[in-house]
Amino acid sequence: MLPRLLLRSRHRRRYSSAAATVPLSTPTFAVFGANTGVGKTLVSAGLVAALLNSRSPSVSAVSYLKPLQTGYPADSDARFVFARAPALLRASSSPRATRLVASCRTLFPSPAVGPEAEPLHQSQEKVVTYGGDGAEEETKVLACRTVYAWREPVSPHLAAEREGMAAGDDEVRGCVDQWLMEEGVGEGGEVWKVLETAGGVASPSASGTLQCDLYRPFRLPAILVGDGRLGGISSTLSAYETLLLRGYDVSTVILEDRDLTNDTFLLSYLRNRVHVLALPQIPEDPSDDLTDWFSESSSVFNLLKDSLQSFHSKRVERLNGMQKKSKDLLWWPFTQHNLVPQDSVTVIDSRCGENFSAYKIKDNTMMLVPQFDACASWWTQGPDSDLQIELARDMGYAAARYGHVMFPENVHEPALRAAELLLGGVGKGWASRVYYSDNGSTAVEIALKMAFRKFSLDHGILADSEKSIRNERNIQLKVLALNGSYHGDTLGAMEAQAPSAYTSFLQQPWYSGRGLFLDPPTVCIKSETCNVSLPQSMQHYPRTSGDTCFPSLAEVFCKTRDTSSAADLYLSYIKQQLSEFSQSSNSDHLAALIIEPVIQGAGGMLMIDPLFQRVLVRECRSRKIPVIFDEVFTGFWRLGVESASELLGCLPDIACYAKLMTGGIVPLAATLATEEVFESFKSDSKLTALLHGHSYTAHAMGCMAALKAIQWYRDPSTNSNLDLDHMKLKELWDGALVKQLSSLPNVKRVVSLGTLCAIELKAEGSDAGYASLYASSLVQQLRREDDIYIRPLGNVIYLMCGPCTPRDSCSRQLHKVLRRLCDLN
Amino acid sequence: MLPRLLLRSRHRRRYSSAAATVPLSTPTFAVFGANTGVGKTLVSAGLVAALLNSRSPSVSAVSYLKPLQTGYPADSDARFVFARAPALLRASSSPRATRLVASCRTLFPSPAVGPEAEPLHQSQEKVVTYGGDGAEEETKVLACRTVYAWREPVSPHLAAEREGMAAGDDEVRGCVDQWLMEEGVGEGGEVWKVLETAGGVASPSASGTLQCDLYRPFRLPAILVGDGRLGGISSTLSAYETLLLRGYDVSTVILEDRDLTNDTFLLSYLRNRVHVLALPQIPEDPSDDLTDWFSESSSVFNLLKDSLQSFHSKRVERLNGMQKKSKDLLWWPFTQHNLVPQDSVTVIDSRCGENFSAYKIKDNTMMLVPQFDACASWWTQGPDSDLQIELARDMGYAAARYGHVMFPENVHEPALRAAELLLGGVGKGWASRVYYSDNGSTAVEIALKMAFRKFSLDHGILADSEKSIRNERNIQLKVLALNGSYHGDTLGAMEAQAPSAYTSFLQQPWYSGRGLFLDPPTVCIKSETCNVSLPQSMQHYPRTSGDTCFPSLAEVFCKTRDTSSAADLYLSYIKQQLSEFSQSSNSDHLAALIIEPVIQGAGGMLMIDPLFQRVLVRECRSRKIPVIFDEVFTGFWRLGVESASELLGCLPDIACYAKLMTGGIVPLAATLATEEVFESFKSDSKLTALLHGHSYTAHAMGCMAALKAIQWYRDPSTNSNLDLDHMKLKELWDGALVKQLSSLPNVKRVVSLGTLCAIELKAEGSDAGYASLYASSLVQQLRREDDIYIRPLGNVIYLMCGPCTPRDSCSRQLHKVLRRLCDLN
Repeated sequence: MLPRLLLRSRHRRRYSSAAATVPLSTPTFAVFGANTGVGKTLVSAGLVAALLNSRSPSVSAVSYLKPLQTGYPADSDARFVFARAPALLRASSSPRATRLVASCRTLFPSPAVGPEAEPLHQSQEKVVTYGGDGAEEETKVLACRTVYAWREPVSPHLAAEREGMAAGDDEVRGCVDQWLMEEGVGEGGEVWKVLETAGGVASPSASGTLQCDLYRPFRLPAILVGDGRLGGISSTLSAYETLLLRGYDVSTVILEDRDLTNDTFLLSYLRNRVHVLALPQIPEDPSDDLTDWFSESSSVFNLLKDSLQSFHSKRVERLNGMQKKSKDLLWWPFTQHNLVPQDSVTVIDSRCGENFSAYKIKDNTMMLVPQFDACASWWTQGPDSDLQIELARDMGYAAARYGHVMFPENVHEPALRAAELLLGGVGKGWASRVYYSDNGSTAVEIALKMAFRKFSLDHGILADSEKSIRNERNIQLKVLALNGSYHGDTLGAMEAQAPSAYTSFLQQPWYSGRGLFLDPPTVCIKSETCNVSLPQSMQHYPRTSGDTCFPSLAEVFCKTRDTSSAADLYLSYIKQQLSEFSQSSNSDHLAALIIEPVIQGAGGMLMIDPLFQRVLVRECRSRKIPVIFDEVFTGFWRLGVESASELLGCLPDIACYAKLMTGGIVPLAATLATEEVFESFKSDSKLTALLHGHSYTAHAMGCMAALKAIQWYRDPSTNSNLDLDHMKLKELWDGALVKQLSSLPNVKRVVSLGTLCAIELKAEGSDAGYASLYASSLVQQLRREDDIYIRPLGNVIYLMCGPCTPRDSCSRQLHKVLRRLCDLN
Repeated sequence: MLPRLLLRSRHRRRYSSAAATVPLSTPTFAVFGANTGVGKTLVSAGLVAALLNSRSPSVSAVSYLKPLQTGYPADSDARFVFARAPALLRASSSPRATRLVASCRTLFPSPAVGPEAEPLHQSQEKVVTYGGDGAEEETKVLACRTVYAWREPVSPHLAAEREGMAAGDDEVRGCVDQWLMEEGVGEGGEVWKVLETAGGVASPSASGTLQCDLYRPFRLPAILVGDGRLGGISSTLSAYETLLLRGYDVSTVILEDRDLTNDTFLLSYLRNRVHVLALPQIPEDPSDDLTDWFSESSSVFNLLKDSLQSFHSKRVERLNGMQKKSKDLLWWPFTQHNLVPQDSVTVIDSRCGENFSAYKIKDNTMMLVPQFDACASWWTQGPDSDLQIELARDMGYAAARYGHVMFPENVHEPALRAAELLLGGVGKGWASRVYYSDNGSTAVEIALKMAFRKFSLDHGILADSEKSIRNERNIQLKVLALNGSYHGDTLGAMEAQAPSAYTSFLQQPWYSGRGLFLDPPTVCIKSETCNVSLPQSMQHYPRTSGDTCFPSLAEVFCKTRDTSSAADLYLSYIKQQLSEFSQSSNSDHLAALIIEPVIQGAGGMLMIDPLFQRVLVRECRSRKIPVIFDEVFTGFWRLGVESASELLGCLPDIACYAKLMTGGIVPLAATLATEEVFESFKSDSKLTALLHGHSYTAHAMGCMAALKAIQWYRDPSTNSNLDLDHMKLKELWDGALVKQLSSLPNVKRVVSLGTLCAIELKAEGSDAGYASLYASSLVQQLRREDDIYIRPLGNVIYLMCGPCTPRDSCSRQLHKVLRRLCDLN
């Protein structure tokens, strides 16, 4: 039997996403260095020996990987470990004789390495027997591997360039992925794995990606080899912080003690955070074969092994207990706890770009598995893995520079710059003021307060203050809104939406629904055409054919429809509704129009006919009813353009933004308004000011995140999905797949626009609607077997990506959904 | 004339806060190193020479400071600059002759340095004349100073320990502060200052505080001297990130080019962020006098000078424009824009612990001035400067590890651990569930929904679902609350408060005030005694004397008052009110009690008699009316205890937390509830679940901040204000000063409790109340002249600190307020 760990990989696997599976049954650590030349390889060799010597746990195999090696073959860290570790095995204390099968391989030496290195350096094996009475009783395995090797002793990015052998991030990650998935031989003992990085934590790899970024998708717990030299405290702490800024957990810092007591200082500074261990000083004499040093160090390496073992077991224990604890302590929103079995709780260990890393037990094996976040974490997620790292750095900076600082009558740079960006972007051409708050719901409450004031002034309701004091409580201001729209869960936002499951007495006894709610015509893709469906209430209006079927969405958005008979129909309907409303009550006023432009999200990803919304906006404008666009869901490229008003072809007086604005990282909302709206709050009295605020208004972290995210999405150098000619996103969801989906018999309709692809399943009666559990078995399949984290809206399932998500990743997910739906048929 | 820059400081100033004034008329930069031995001093010398050579801008003086020097006198960076820079001055191109007066001083050599170093090394002066035709026409000044010097060439923390000369952070900062404030000679030209740090960015100072932390209060723009050696990309980027994690702006990275193209890589990696410059390789031969190297490098140093100059002018230009831009673009909450003159806008450049660093022009001089944040940034600010740095690191980590991940049916470590801490802390003994949301207002809306459901089930309102569907809209659920209480600005929270300026038709036409609002008795300190005042509505109840005056607050909180006649009075009043309410309407139910325990914040920092609230809670409990504590303001040590329920001596069914919970850094709220409340939402239908949520529910950054802050406040090793015997904060506001304040004729009352000290000024008619501008001139004085950032609540001014703010800092602020109020008399 040749253990798999000894096998040479036969091919370079194409590895095309930032997602990675990490088995947890095999403790695996990454060795990072505070600098180059601090002894990473000595630590690796010492650790490997300590592991092979270990009785508790009993370790049957250790696999060591050096993905990037330069200075090869003169330098080969894998060969050093291969040569050294066996010599350090404890001959005496072993009760049983042990046969160690050790091997060393280099998978891809650069052409410059030359043939003279073969086979001596590229492939070696040896068998060592030690301990006990000499009778062979136990076999252990040590596999040491180099993946890529270059001759020049320089940084891999230089060597790769000079020697003409590239190693792209996907290739390197693919090799690591394969290495992680190898089961190895577990003959009665544990298998451990050690990955040694190249240079310091932020040294470039062959592609130029920093070490810490290259291996981030795996987020292996780190051993940081510190620097014992003068200045070493600084470089060790900085390296530690660089690892934290990538979301790594550092289990242990280990460094040589050079009589500068760096270790003592670090021990004190890092107490309660990281284990710190000191090694004897490494002899500087190159002729020293380090035998004495390793012998002196063996107790430290045993401590290191113990520390890693304890770190690993605590980690696994914690992960194992999280499902139960979450069921015991948490109260999830929008969740009937009785319907969530403990084992269906998703334990999210981390995220990397669009993917969660979720803890799962599959086939009795504990592992971290990537899951595509197809609900975009409640429609907030925008960053790819690069932006996530940028945001992490910015968040650290903003917290250190500002924390939070109070906003009214004050100004700070992030709030001001974010305002400039908003007014020059989504607010361009109409807005002149930015009002910050915390989330979409508060942004909507603020927008309503703005609209009501403007309306009251414009319509003389506040003209005579004496009179208004007497009468104001008789005057009822209401909103004009659309059935199925959703604007948030605080009462003020709820009142602006039509009755639904969210608004029942059971949920909020104070809800009354203060609006006139119109039925909108909707658009969907079904069997390869775009259809406009009229609501029941419009069915009796005169209309011509040809208004309802379009070959593509482009025609639906076309401005020439303004002169179509559909436009006339819509206008008649709207006028009729408004007139009925005003006849029914003299004291009721429609004081604001509020709509989600183009797509009603929480209502079931319904696409509203943009022509209808455009006609409605124009009619309100002509009646001096302020127009609010709730762009909390639709804003910032969600629908393929920065603001959905570009799709509608008309502008609001007030608009609300949140979710994607901060790159999906911290809550922040902004309500934008025209100068006319702002002016309606000005006077000489504080009492006419807009008295609405939250403690964290315009908090620096949120504004800083918004700054970065807004720029990132719209910059072609960071967002390759941008179609610069039209300043919109290229088609992310493969058109052919969407058409296939829309033709399936169990699919009622599809909406594919920008980062959204929604699929309504055919369902009848109680299977339709928000409370439906109709899609739940499909959802569980997609989560468990396809690693797509789907969360349905009743019988509507959807995929949502970020503005920068690569199209091939979108296609992969869509394929999986298509396959499942075909199987269902 | 001896320029001040040449003077030796006569004394070590006691420097006792993290606040610092930084003049901006004198461009000042700090030189940090990516490691030790990367050439910081060479860069300093080259830069100093380039500055003295500069024609545009014309520089008349350069002051160089080395606060901490080891290896002295053999090594002296100040002496190196003093010796080198004059030699590099441009003899030829100068049109006028220049006389350079250069000096070098060491202020505090350690005793181990020995007398032999005097005076040669500790004090030197020279005059160099160069350029032009020899006639003396222009004088320039170069002052080079070392502050503390130790003999051993090791890290300052080791040298200080071994040589017995300490240099505490306050002392070092005091010297830097004094150096920054020195005006120097500006004979027709600019004065520039350069501070050179010791070792790498995170090398320990004499006290053990890291370099980057030691100088953080000044937040000088940084020049980072990078590392050109193998591994230098990593150490340079890590050092850069360490500076970002302290909130520094790095203007330029400069490093030697050792043919490893580290500079090329960094240039590309840091593009659009930081200027990167490469120096010729530094000769390694110690006998090389570097003349050639400096000559080769002079063009690079000129580029460095230009880059710093451009950085400085952009910075000042931006700061100068921020007041106007903020007036043009922002819409502040709770602010009548007409009442905010442009020049009264506070430009906040950064914060460090409890202090803002605000940009001001004082006596025609631009400067950054520390301002004590006495409104605790809307009552959120908790971190001292140490916790701020810790939080910054955690924020970077949380963003990198998680970004935001969706919460319902999921669990992640920060959300779970924060829940564990909350339930083991403020929720201990009663709560079993944590419901996360975004801010105090949403937490209250959620609490109300919880209470209404629990009440409806307990009182049979939802018992018969058939019946309830018919009748629910006739049933009115209302809250029992106190006049003057405040629970947030979203409509649902507003409805739970009594009518006020915030709730008028003008502000929110939908407000109706759905509650029975009781008048509470209040407590205040006046003329050295604690008085309980009864509201008008209680005046006719029978009572005994002795219930109203107490020698101290301790007696007011005493549980023995439960059997006093005041308790009887309160109970009679409450029963009477409840009975009147139930008689007035059959279909109205009081379905929740909501109170701010002990202190009503936004209502004017009113202290409510805790006995009254206790009696009220008990009465509601006996009637099965769920009890909500709104601890958004009072929670987490605001009132000196972790939860204000400890002061009240009774527990709620539901409680809301926010503000201080995250250490005042990002928005996050939590509504805690008992298991009985949670159970009332369980069934087999999704429709009975609590359908309220926000996108960023339980976002990882907020939960991570909460984790850190909650632990920091309650840990005696990080919070020295803790009185461990009683698990409460020691008295932060000096009792004697508070008594003096309370006895002033223009003071109506004082409330001093925990981190809060509120002072109500005597005012009549329109001068009292929220809209009053009565205190505004006092407030302007405190802001402008005393550097306390006060924001009044009408005629109530208050000081608020964090749970860890040192008592002497509190006393200093209180003194300033006392002095102003005495002056007003």
